[in-house]
Order: sequence, then C-alpha cells, then structure tokens
Amino acid sequence: MEKGVAESAPSSKKSNANSKNAKKKEVKKETGLGLSNKKDENFGEWYSEVVVSGEMIEYYDISGCYILRPWTMSIWETMQAFFDAEIKKMKIKNCYFPLFVSPGVLQREKDHIEGFAPEVAWVTKSGDTDLDVHIAIRPTSETVMYPYYSKWIRGHRDLPLKLNQWCNVVRWEFSHPTPFIRSREFLWQEGHTAFATKEEADEEVLQILELYRRIYEEFLAIPVVKGKKSELEKFAGGLYTTSVEAFIPNTGRGIQGATSHCLGQNFAKMFEINFENEKGEKGMVWQNSWAYSTRTIGVMVMVHGDDKGLVMPPKVSSIQVIVIPVPFKDADTKGIFDACSETVKTLSEAGFRVEDDLRENYSPGWKYSHWEMKGVPLRIEIGPKDLANKQVRVVRRDNSAKVDIPVSNLVEQVKEILSKIQDSLFEAAKEKRDKCIEKVKTWDEFMTALSDKKMILAPWCDEEEVEKDVKARTKGEAGAAKTLCTPFDQPELPEGTLCFASGKPAKKWTYWGRSY
Amino acid sequence: MEKGVAESAPSSKKSNANSKNAKKKEVKKETGLGLSNKKDENFGEWYSEVVVSGEMIEYYDISGCYILRPWTMSIWETMQAFFDAEIKKMKIKNCYFPLFVSPGVLQREKDHIEGFAPEVAWVTKSGDTDLDVHIAIRPTSETVMYPYYSKWIRGHRDLPLKLNQWCNVVRWEFSHPTPFIRSREFLWQEGHTAFATKEEADEEVLQILELYRRIYEEFLAIPVVKGKKSELEKFAGGLYTTSVEAFIPNTGRGIQGATSHCLGQNFAKMFEINFENEKGEKGMVWQNSWAYSTRTIGVMVMVHGDDKGLVMPPKVSSIQVIVIPVPFKDADTKGIFDACSETVKTLSEAGFRVEDDLRENYSPGWKYSHWEMKGVPLRIEIGPKDLANKQVRVVRRDNSAKVDIPVSNLVEQVKEILSKIQDSLFEAAKEKRDKCIEKVKTWDEFMTALSDKKMILAPWCDEEEVEKDVKARTKGEAGAAKTLCTPFDQPELPEGTLCFASGKPAKKWTYWGRSY
Repeated sequence: MEKGVAESAPSSKKSNANSKNAKKKEVKKETGLGLSNKKDENFGEWYSEVVVSGEMIEYYDISGCYILRPWTMSIWETMQAFFDAEIKKMKIKNCYFPLFVSPGVLQREKDHIEGFAPEVAWVTKSGDTDLDVHIAIRPTSETVMYPYYSKWIRGHRDLPLKLNQWCNVVRWEFSHPTPFIRSREFLWQEGHTAFATKEEADEEVLQILELYRRIYEEFLAIPVVKGKKSELEKFAGGLYTTSVEAFIPNTGRGIQGATSHCLGQNFAKMFEINFENEKGEKGMVWQNSWAYSTRTIGVMVMVHGDDKGLVMPPKVSSIQVIVIPVPFKDADTKGIFDACSETVKTLSEAGFRVEDDLRENYSPGWKYSHWEMKGVPLRIEIGPKDLANKQVRVVRRDNSAKVDIPVSNLVEQVKEILSKIQDSLFEAAKEKRDKCIEKVKTWDEFMTALSDKKMILAPWCDEEEVEKDVKARTKGEAGAAKTLCTPFDQPELPEGTLCFASGKPAKKWTYWGRSY
Repeated sequence: MEKGVAESAPSSKKSNANSKNAKKKEVKKETGLGLSNKKDENFGEWYSEVVVSGEMIEYYDISGCYILRPWTMSIWETMQAFFDAEIKKMKIKNCYFPLFVSPGVLQREKDHIEGFAPEVAWVTKSGDTDLDVHIAIRPTSETVMYPYYSKWIRGHRDLPLKLNQWCNVVRWEFSHPTPFIRSREFLWQEGHTAFATKEEADEEVLQILELYRRIYEEFLAIPVVKGKKSELEKFAGGLYTTSVEAFIPNTGRGIQGATSHCLGQNFAKMFEINFENEKGEKGMVWQNSWAYSTRTIGVMVMVHGDDKGLVMPPKVSSIQVIVIPVPFKDADTKGIFDACSETVKTLSEAGFRVEDDLRENYSPGWKYSHWEMKGVPLRIEIGPKDLANKQVRVVRRDNSAKVDIPVSNLVEQVKEILSKIQDSLFEAAKEKRDKCIEKVKTWDEFMTALSDKKMILAPWCDEEEVEKDVKARTKGEAGAAKTLCTPFDQPELPEGTLCFASGKPAKKWTYWGRSY
C-alpha cells in the first residue's frame, strides 16, 4: 500500500469537519482510540484500560461483576469446544446442578467450607418474603453434587462416575476485584469424578492437567509450569492439588492457571459415597475435581497485550485476519473494495476467520488502530499499488512485520504466517518468563530475587510451618511470598542441599513468589 | 433373536440369588425398573416418575430446583448446537452479562418489573456480612443489559446490535414446581437485539420464531402453532409477543413453547437508547428479545413418553441405537459379543450415536426395559440365529415394530428407520394434537370443549376486558382458561361472525384453553 495513506483524513461524511485535523480529532474524541496507560509504566491501569478498549469487558454497576463482550466470549467458546471434545473422549459427561445450596449440605465438609465461607453469597428473600432457610449460591459444587453421588453410586458397576458442568459460580470477594482474574461471578467448567481406585483417580488428575497445559500453551500461547501445590495452598478438603502456573513478568506475580485436584476419600467419607466391589466388600470412592475459568483470558491479556492494545493468539482470535481497503484519491476504489471482498471470500473458504472493514466513514489509519487495539493477529491492506501488482500487504500484530504476498499464494502464506504468529507469541512469552525464573539457595538470594520480581525456584524442606514462616517474613504492601508449585520437572537436588528458608535438609525444588 | 431368551434369568454373579425368580426380583428391586404410574391414569405422577427413572432429572433438596443429568444435557446441547449456529449466521453474537442486578436498574421499567417482582430472589448477605444494597438475581436480562446498550449505541453505525447469551435465570415461583416446566432456576438462551427501524425488528421476530418452530417440530418432533399473544398475555413491558404453542393432550393444557418479543421502543425510552441517523437526526432504537429454555425438554417428555418410559426423537437422543447381545446357553457367546461390537463400529463410523450394552450381570430382558425407559429410539438385538443368518433384529421404541436386517445393509436401513421414527413421532403427536383442536362459536360450545380438555379455536373480539371476563368465568380447580395465541394461519372469518364470549363482532380466530 501507499505510505502516508494510512495517515490521511477519514473519508468522513460528517459535515462539520472542515480540516483534516479537525476530522481526525473528532474521530479520536468520539472513539477514544489509543491507550493512555503504558504496560511497563502502570500495569494495573493499562490492564483495566485494555480490556475495556479492546471491547472484551464492560465494567458493571455492581463492583466485581463484569460484562463479557462477544470478543471475550468467542475466545471462551473456542477453548470450550476443544476441552469439551477432549473430555467427551474420556467418557466424561456433561450435567447441570443447581446454582443454590442449602446451608446444611454446604457445611458438611468442615475444611472445605472454612475455605469458602467468607465469600458465600446468601439469598434470604424472594420478592418481599423472607425465606425460612437462607440459601447459598455455589462458590464451587462439591457439596452441591456429592450427596447425589452417594445416591447414584451403589456398586462397582456404577463406577467410574465422571461428570462435568459448564456454569457460573459466585465468590463474593472484597479484595481488589480485577476483570477475569478476580471477579465475584465467573464462568468455568468443573469436573467431578469418582473412581473405585486411587490409581484411576491419580491418572485422571494428570490427564486433565495436560489438557489445561494445552489450553494455555497451544491455544493461549502462554508457557505454564505443571506441578503440585503445597499443603498450605492445596484445595480445601482435598488430598492433593496439581496446577498449571503462569507468570506475569510485569508485576512479578505468579498466577494459578487451572487446578486438577485429587480429593482422596475425604469427601467420600463426609458424604458417604460408598460402593460394593466385585467381591461384595464395601469400599469408599476416590474422587477428583478440576476446573479452569475465564481467568485464562485475563492471563492471555496480561501476557501478550502491548501499548497498542490486545494481542490475540490466532488460535483463539474471533477474527484472525482483518482486511482493510486503502483507497487513494483517484484510484480505482471499487476495484480495491472488490479485491478486499475477494480476499475475504478466498480466506474464508480456506477456513480462516476473516472479515473486511469496508466502512466508508473511517480512515484506514483509524481502522488500523482499531483492529490493533482488538489484537487481530493479521491485517491485510489493499491499496492501488497492491491491486496493480496483484498482491496484498500483510502486517503482523505481534511484531508489526510487513510483507507483500502475491494473491496467487494467499492461502498458503496466510496459513504459514498465522502459524508463525502463534509460535512466536509462545516463544516470546516463554523467553520473557524464563528470564524471570531465578534459582536461589539462600534466604538472601531469595529476598533479592523477590524484590526483583522473580519466579523463584528454591530448595525447600516441604514443611507447612516453614511456608507460613516465609509468608510472615515477607509480608508487606505487595503481598507475601508463597509457594506457587513444586514442578514435576525437578532439577537435580544434590545430596546435602539445604532449605533456603529453614536450613533443614531440602526435599525438593519449589517455585515461590508473589501471586494473584 | 430367540423368543424367550429375553425373559431368561440374568447371568448374575450374585451368590445369594438361587432361583430365576429370586434373581429377577432382586434386579427389579435394586434398580426400580418399570413405572408404577400410567400416563393416561395419573399424568402428573407418571411425569415425575418418568423424568427420574429415565435418568433425566434428579430431585434436589431445594424445592423447585432440579439436577439435569447427562441424558438431559445431551438433548440441550444438540438443540444448542443447532440454534447457536443459526443465530451466528444471522450475525448475532454471544456475550455474558452478570447474574446480579442492582435494584435501581431492575425497577427502571415499571410494567416489566411488576411482572417479575414477586419472583425475584434477593442476595442480602455475603459470608456473615449484610450487604448495604440488596442485589437481585436476574429473572431475565432486559434491565441487566439495556443500560449498556444505551452506552454502546451512539450512531446508526452501531446498529443493529445483536447479542445473545446462554445462561441460567432464577424465578422464585411458589406454585407447583415441575421439572423442566416450572422450576426456580432454569437454563435458556436470551437474545437481545436493537435496530434502527421497526421493520428490521419485525422481521427478526419472525426469523427467530421460525427457529423455535424448527426446534420443536424438526428436533423434538412436536407440532406447534405459531401466533401472537394477546395484550393480557404478552411480555411485560413489550410491544407484542409471538410464540410457538404446544399442547399436552393428556392434561388438555396448552404450553407456551418459546417466545419472540418485539419490545418496541418502550425499553429504549426507559433506558435512553438513542442514536443519531445518517442525517444527524436523533432516533430511538427498536428492540427485540427472545428466548427458549429447558422447558422444551419437558414438553418432549410429556408429548412422546409412554408407560414404558421416555420416548426420544432420534435427532436429539444421546444414544440413537443401543446394541444388546442375546446369548443363549451353548451358543457362540464370543461371536455374539463380537458381532455387537462390530455393529457399533459400523454404525458409529457412519455417523450414528450408538452404544452396546455388554454388561454381563444383566439379562437381555432387563437391558431392554432399561433402554426403553431411557427412550432410545432403536434397539438392535443379536442372538445365535442372527449370527448364523448374518442379520440383526431391530426393534423400534416408538411402536415396538420388529424387523430383521441383513448385516450387509445395516447402515442404509438404520438410517431409514431412524428417519421414519423421527417422522412418525411427529405425525403421531400431530394427529393427537389435531384431535384435541375444537372450533367453537358459542359460549356453550366453548365450555363443553373446555371440560373436554380441548385446544379451542374461537372467534374473538380481541378486547382485553373480555379475556379477563373469560378468565373470571372459568376460574376453578383446574385453573382458568385464557388465550394461548392468535395463530398466524387464520381460518376464514365470515362477515358477521360474533365473539364467542362477548357477542361483539369477532376480529380474529384465537386459541383458548387451560395452560401450564
């Protein structure tokens, strides 16, 4: 395309815009294009701004609740289609349990409810009538579901029981609501499975965790660490918790990406989920629960977004390619527009998610900014020169690289470039994340790394008291440090290595840091 | 298959079952096979029993809330896949708005809130803390969404705005909760669209209504009448309501299947949803909202179910074909089991939803009953004779018709039979429904038809006071009669025809009856 055209005035029909500048200013004012915060300077403000300007989120009049706009929902649906198909292959079936829980059931499992009680929202009235019994809104559905597992599971033939639901849950947190990351209502899937043996449960925990890794790494292009949570950080009432952990370099915080819990037999005991095995012996089931939520989308924004707005990985972007006509004075405007439509048709038929932006009242430059703000991975510009040369100009969102592609080779090259974008988003994120990882051995090194916003890998004695102690000693405005996870992929731990915090013999390498 | 084999004892491993009868009884007791209520004798009890025994619903410990089991969810997902794809073709986009509404917003539209106020559930506490402002749970999302429509819509370029969401809503009704049909929480989609002109809104109302008709008629095999609701029965705060109306012959009640509302400009006025048109003139948007819910599934159960259990239309059945081995004494059991697996493989590869039931501890007869209870459209039995003759025996759920099919022709014939089942379920339902339709002209005829549980088509003056009067005059234990809809497909109305209720000149033919 012609250089300079992008900055020309919009071909606006507005009658009160007389000069180029007046027109541009007006557009700018009207639409609020461009971010006023920079990612590296003011991350929190930048994040709030980019999710709104990128049209993912609208703030709502109830604090901690957010409107998920179509640009968000299409990402959610893409991940959902993948995950839902995968769990169906595993013979996990979808169901839907009620939003409401009665207090008696909610409080059955003591450790569990202690973890959630302060955040539970209570319905006490309908219309003008006070309810006799207050009713809780599910913060998660273990206690909603398990009384019925007890009813449905009688013999070994009823096992395994593997259910999942896609739903909303409510946790009325009062600390720092943040779109996607910490909201009072969010969308998720929650899987709840019961097995005859611990081995089956253990195996499924890791199968699901692998799906979560794929969601982050293959779809959202975000590197994650698979590992096990500490006793202090595991799911309230469960046996052990595995997770995928991401990291936000800008804030130096870890973020729990998704969790797959083995609940052991604790809930089975509380809810009396027993079965009779082949030999007529009584047994208690082994249970798992696992979930990922719309939080995934927030991590994606934080990791990939830049000062021009969102950066969407092609695999999850609602629009992968946006085609923009760049007319110029007396050039063949109709020809250009037709070429745009033709390009959309070709790519669309080849299976890409592609749209054109033929609106006449916005300048190409305005459109570039608009679609950059929304993070569309690839922009195709078609101007008079492109038309003449039977080519299109292609611009990558992630690194602004430009290349001219002959129309004859459009599909192949777009495919290749989108695939490259997906890969290099992941590589770039991994490089950044890896730079943040610091291996330490002593408390001093730990404290230095913490103030340097690192994701800290340290040898640990694996004692709960020591983690509590680290928390207490690192308390401060930015929040205390805690364990993120003990990675499955363990570096060598030489004989005699000591715990960075307690000086006792270390048992494992564990990631530590501040977290969301 | 061999006659008699079906009634043989289960090859049970239970050690305490000594005689055939003892075994059979035990199985019966354990699993509760067979319905204790008959559809024609005790419809209400039959319905409650069939949704539970068919494993669609589990009753929950909070009244009016139900667990939707996988057998239900797969129907919902099938309809959702169809509808979601259709509305995406119409460029309607999915979004997700919060579950919660603040009271100020909820009460903005007076007529609307009057319709819903008594049923609104209120959250007043989180943890032990009383909330300063009570928060409502959405009974529907007009008031949740439209303040943001006002924000997002500025000029004609922002129109049309077409959003949909799949979500749960809560209506805390106290009258006769019924699974699917009237529950305190239910799943639905709700579409909310805004247009520059009434013409566009009118057009969309009917496009959506046609999709609802297709869900009922093409998927659930239930005949519906498309029409317009009376002023008294239209959506609170809207301009006019269209609906698809089904009818339950057993109870003689109409049931509103789904509604597509034109809201006119009433909400636009209340929520100030204005825009500037091409000429710079101010305008107010025209809005629609439309929804269908899990109620659809209840109607399906009521219309097709019989004394053996559910009857599932093939298009929505999670399992379309169940394959059951019928071993016999010294017959080649392995050969039979292999033939079953092979049949599943063949049909599965041809795109059918098919499973086998190879469980060794249940008799063929028990399995027949089990899958009949769940309503699986087609059963394939494979016994020694079938094996020898390279055939399978096929049994239809809807009419018990049996036919032997050569294995060589399996796919074609199964396809044809499933298609026939889908059609004849619809035809049978239509025939039954049509028999219930009675055209009346006078009050006496009307009252007779009403007590005969008819769906009554009557000439009406279309006055709200007259409908109120009919309601008052027909009040009773079974509930008052009201208008169901004025069908778009109008019979001829001869000049001079009088209203059946008021004796004034009739303006149209309208369906009346008792309803859910």
